[in-house]
Amino acid sequence: VGTGTAGLGAELHGLATRLFPITRSLTGPGLRETLAILAETAGSLETHRWPTGAHVFDWTIPDEWTFREAWIKDSWGRKVVDSAESNLHVLGYSEPVHRRLSLDELRGHLHTIPELPHAIPYLTSYYARRWGFCLQHERLRDLPDGEYEVLIDADLEPGHVELGEVVLPGESDDEVLFSTYVCHPSLANNGLSGPVIAAQLARLLRDRPRRRLTYRFVFVPATIGAVAYLSRVGDQLRKRLVAGYVITCAGDPGAFTYKRSRRGDTLADRAAEHVLRESRTAHSVIDFFPSGSDERQYCSPAFDLPVGSLMRTMYGTYPEYNTSLDNLDFITAEALEETLAMYVALVDVLEANETLSVTVTHGEPQLGKRGLYPTLGTAGDTEEKVADMMWLLNMCDGTRDLLAVAEYAGRPVAALAPIALELMAAGLLQAALV
Amino acid sequence: VGTGTAGLGAELHGLATRLFPITRSLTGPGLRETLAILAETAGSLETHRWPTGAHVFDWTIPDEWTFREAWIKDSWGRKVVDSAESNLHVLGYSEPVHRRLSLDELRGHLHTIPELPHAIPYLTSYYARRWGFCLQHERLRDLPDGEYEVLIDADLEPGHVELGEVVLPGESDDEVLFSTYVCHPSLANNGLSGPVIAAQLARLLRDRPRRRLTYRFVFVPATIGAVAYLSRVGDQLRKRLVAGYVITCAGDPGAFTYKRSRRGDTLADRAAEHVLRESRTAHSVIDFFPSGSDERQYCSPAFDLPVGSLMRTMYGTYPEYNTSLDNLDFITAEALEETLAMYVALVDVLEANETLSVTVTHGEPQLGKRGLYPTLGTAGDTEEKVADMMWLLNMCDGTRDLLAVAEYAGRPVAALAPIALELMAAGLLQAALV
Amino acid sequence: VGTGTAGLGAELHGLATRLFPITRSLTGPGLRETLAILAETAGSLETHRWPTGAHVFDWTIPDEWTFREAWIKDSWGRKVVDSAESNLHVLGYSEPVHRRLSLDELRGHLHTIPELPHAIPYLTSYYARRWGFCLQHERLRDLPDGEYEVLIDADLEPGHVELGEVVLPGESDDEVLFSTYVCHPSLANNGLSGPVIAAQLARLLRDRPRRRLTYRFVFVPATIGAVAYLSRVGDQLRKRLVAGYVITCAGDPGAFTYKRSRRGDTLADRAAEHVLRESRTAHSVIDFFPSGSDERQYCSPAFDLPVGSLMRTMYGTYPEYNTSLDNLDFITAEALEETLAMYVALVDVLEANETLSVTVTHGEPQLGKRGLYPTLGTAGDTEEKVADMMWLLNMCDGTRDLLAVAEYAGRPVAALAPIALELMAAGLLQAALV
Repeated sequence: VGTGTAGLGAELHGLATRLFPITRSLTGPGLRETLAILAETAGSLETHRWPTGAHVFDWTIPDEWTFREAWIKDSWGRKVVDSAESNLHVLGYSEPVHRRLSLDELRGHLHTIPELPHAIPYLTSYYARRWGFCLQHERLRDLPDGEYEVLIDADLEPGHVELGEVVLPGESDDEVLFSTYVCHPSLANNGLSGPVIAAQLARLLRDRPRRRLTYRFVFVPATIGAVAYLSRVGDQLRKRLVAGYVITCAGDPGAFTYKRSRRGDTLADRAAEHVLRESRTAHSVIDFFPSGSDERQYCSPAFDLPVGSLMRTMYGTYPEYNTSLDNLDFITAEALEETLAMYVALVDVLEANETLSVTVTHGEPQLGKRGLYPTLGTAGDTEEKVADMMWLLNMCDGTRDLLAVAEYAGRPVAALAPIALELMAAGLLQAALV
Repeated sequence: VGTGTAGLGAELHGLATRLFPITRSLTGPGLRETLAILAETAGSLETHRWPTGAHVFDWTIPDEWTFREAWIKDSWGRKVVDSAESNLHVLGYSEPVHRRLSLDELRGHLHTIPELPHAIPYLTSYYARRWGFCLQHERLRDLPDGEYEVLIDADLEPGHVELGEVVLPGESDDEVLFSTYVCHPSLANNGLSGPVIAAQLARLLRDRPRRRLTYRFVFVPATIGAVAYLSRVGDQLRKRLVAGYVITCAGDPGAFTYKRSRRGDTLADRAAEHVLRESRTAHSVIDFFPSGSDERQYCSPAFDLPVGSLMRTMYGTYPEYNTSLDNLDFITAEALEETLAMYVALVDVLEANETLSVTVTHGEPQLGKRGLYPTLGTAGDTEEKVADMMWLLNMCDGTRDLLAVAEYAGRPVAALAPIALELMAAGLLQAALV
Repeated sequence: VGTGTAGLGAELHGLATRLFPITRSLTGPGLRETLAILAETAGSLETHRWPTGAHVFDWTIPDEWTFREAWIKDSWGRKVVDSAESNLHVLGYSEPVHRRLSLDELRGHLHTIPELPHAIPYLTSYYARRWGFCLQHERLRDLPDGEYEVLIDADLEPGHVELGEVVLPGESDDEVLFSTYVCHPSLANNGLSGPVIAAQLARLLRDRPRRRLTYRFVFVPATIGAVAYLSRVGDQLRKRLVAGYVITCAGDPGAFTYKRSRRGDTLADRAAEHVLRESRTAHSVIDFFPSGSDERQYCSPAFDLPVGSLMRTMYGTYPEYNTSLDNLDFITAEALEETLAMYVALVDVLEANETLSVTVTHGEPQLGKRGLYPTLGTAGDTEEKVADMMWLLNMCDGTRDLLAVAEYAGRPVAALAPIALELMAAGLLQAALV
């Protein structure tokens, strides 16, 4: 695996391209294959599994779905809809079927988007047995009356729900979670952008010389996977998690969106909003709402974890969302790399975010005698670095973390952090006893 | 009494029209007659009385004023001012007088509004003995010099201060108060609009099949009545009152005004502001100030009750205020009905405003297996009702009432309340143990 | 010393003019002479001193600097730079020197401002030994190559750091601090404006018939003086200081600037912001930052005192700052007097700011029987004074000070304070038991 940062965007897009054609769902071989490919980048994944019928909180693990092929043939035997063209053509979790029927009978099993006539919608029926096809509305419009033959070659049988996890231990037990979902078939932004960025971020963090915090990456089937995962590690997360993010809709070139955690003012929120603000790029910050992605589970009342979601254009707000138009052209190498860089900046802030105490608390420390102050100067005439030192020496009193100091000062953590290290080396700052 | 909702506005205006000519004051037969007429709509009123000379907190109950007639005759014996034309012509609580005097001597007893030359001002002298007349400035201007005869046929003698009360018990001891004043003579908006709406609201609530809360309506002479009432029920209100409103200036077609309680963030305030916001009509919300109406007493420091005031155009802010121009044309059937409807919506919010707890707290409840979720759908594709269910199931964790959930979600209580009932029926929500 | 208020501005400017030519520094005869002159206005100053080499918190008291004269002569013996022209020409705390050297050798000891070619910069080297001259950039540009003779006749020898203090005791131990610095040589706004206003304010307060609070004025050499002062009185200030202000940059005609204390919501901040708001003049309020003046020391973490700074155009934000252009023309008699008046208004607010309790807490007090209410009036028709009484009688419940009542009511303390006295006389308000 190549690693030059220069080519990271191309690498991210390449990985998405490789994963795109695989038919994924909540369960089954496509999901397993996806986890195996992501492990090449993220590192060895620990697999968690739950058998069909098992109970995880209020939920029951469903049958496993194994899909092979699906098509509709017209009366001449020509395939007018074919899953080989796009795996979106089959309604997710369709039960098997093979029969002949009239167009009128067929219509009840066909799903289109009249407003986007050339797009195939993405639909599933996880928890009620049915079969169906999704197709372009313009193609449906052109189907002549007559008899059709339909085939969905798939099994719905006991199996497992599975997910993959990487834990990168740090010096502290405090944890950071990155969660993303791997159950969407050929959808690029609301599907692959999250997993490829998470995998690459895991690789970069694995190679980091020092980690103050412990990092947990989890690749789950949406909803059921997050619920199952919480049933196993939820209590630990409640004790240790300091920040977490659901990564999704992260590859389109739109402006960044940060969706806050349920509590709204957790470290996850403060760090993400700081990084976005300091990026000086247009972005929006929205309060938590309980629709959306797996933050719904992480932020359910009993857990109420510090988990937000840093995205580009949010699910449900772009017309290509959950259609065949959310394809490999909709995401770009540049956008993927930029999002990855934003997550790297976020990690840098979390790593730097210690609570420090100044050792000289009565009056200012005399910086001059330590060689930290310009010896020639007009009183009060301080350049930016001296001003930053002053901020740290005044505000780091053990009551607020570095992010709070940075926010008060209107300065980036990225600028204050190296100066804090210098002041620690000079004995003027030290870790606060919390 | 007719009751079709369609004609409520006409009924309200009709009742005001019937009450308009009665000469009311703090005490006396006009006030008693008014209470008797209001009881026809509101239901039987319990009367509370305090005798002249009694002490209620810092106040002393005044003499009772019985007014019969008042006029000024010119030297030809023609009545140039006559209380038969308007009961505003007599200075409220005037002592009796019958004498002849020159125009110059008379002037010290005449009150006008030079800026509104054709309006009669409304003036009183409750707590200092004097006599006087109020008249149109243009009429005063035309009075020739000469001798005049004045008569005020009235008694000021020991009697009672009285007020009327209706209590409509509900399932809970928690109480809601509606207070309005009945001491103004021929003034329509700052006078009759409050009592007629309160009486009608009492009737509607009496007929409601279920009341969670207990409702208390009180018709008082302003200030002294509210002080006296508090001396009797203040301690109980301090324990039980969850919300209260002074109804006044409620019949003109101007925009709604909500004046907050002294504490500013009580249930009274939150409910009123919610109902106004969701009404999508222009309105203003203003902080408490200790001038105004009987909220001054309810919000005195020892009580500090959750009492605000939901009005249309506030007292003191319209030129017709406390003049003969605040007449039956100044209030409209439509405005009266609309204000009543706003109070009904307020009651609906207060009734619905329980604190609920979700029964599935670890991850989301699986709505699908309970038939509450569309079985066919793209992940995250939720229609409004599903989104409302999600809000309730995530936010109802026993720490906030339904209003707080609605405000967080930016949704009307009116929309969430029926869905909450459905989720209670499905066993997913229950009353929180407080 | 003349005292007519009419001439206060001229008097302030006159005092600044008298002090302007003295060569001041952190230590030495110029500072002592300045304190002696200020004492003529402020009253007898108590002197605090610390010997060279003493430790005050993290700092060491430096040598005393005695300056006599400094010049540069060209090869013809003509003085091209001469401290007799401006004491800014010598780098503050220069060590003595007398030698001949080439222009190239000399350049390393010459300081100018290329962007302001006709201004002499103000520079010091307190804590590193060096010598140097400050001059107009245009003069440096004109110096021909050749040999120059330089003389700095000065001593750096053990001595003292000194400061002057006036304490004006009041009825209470609660203290107010005014701190200003006296170490700047010929700089008018960022130098003399603070001391002359502080001295005059001390005189006015000394003559005040009654002082509820105790006032402490301190005239210090910047930084080292404030640190030393805190080492002596810091613990007492921590217990007793209710508000404090650093007075500086107070004589230019620019808009007022208030820099908040570190805590941001202390009485110092609330009073200053109130006075500025009620002045109805344009002004700005900025949050604390730990560069600037002696508030850096007062607001160091261990003290965190309620000390802000009420200025005109803040240090560092005007081009004349710390140059020879900050001269006696840059400050005006009008501006000095206006700033003094603002400080007097601030003292008036602090003096008036008691926490009061209404004695009638159940319902309103009956103002009429006490002759405090117009006996003739329409209900709710209250003039401004009655409204102010209502505010006080409702809001003064022992939980908030007069400033909080004024802010809630949107009224000036200056208007409420005399009415509060009247209500105290009537037995309706009393000092709250805190």
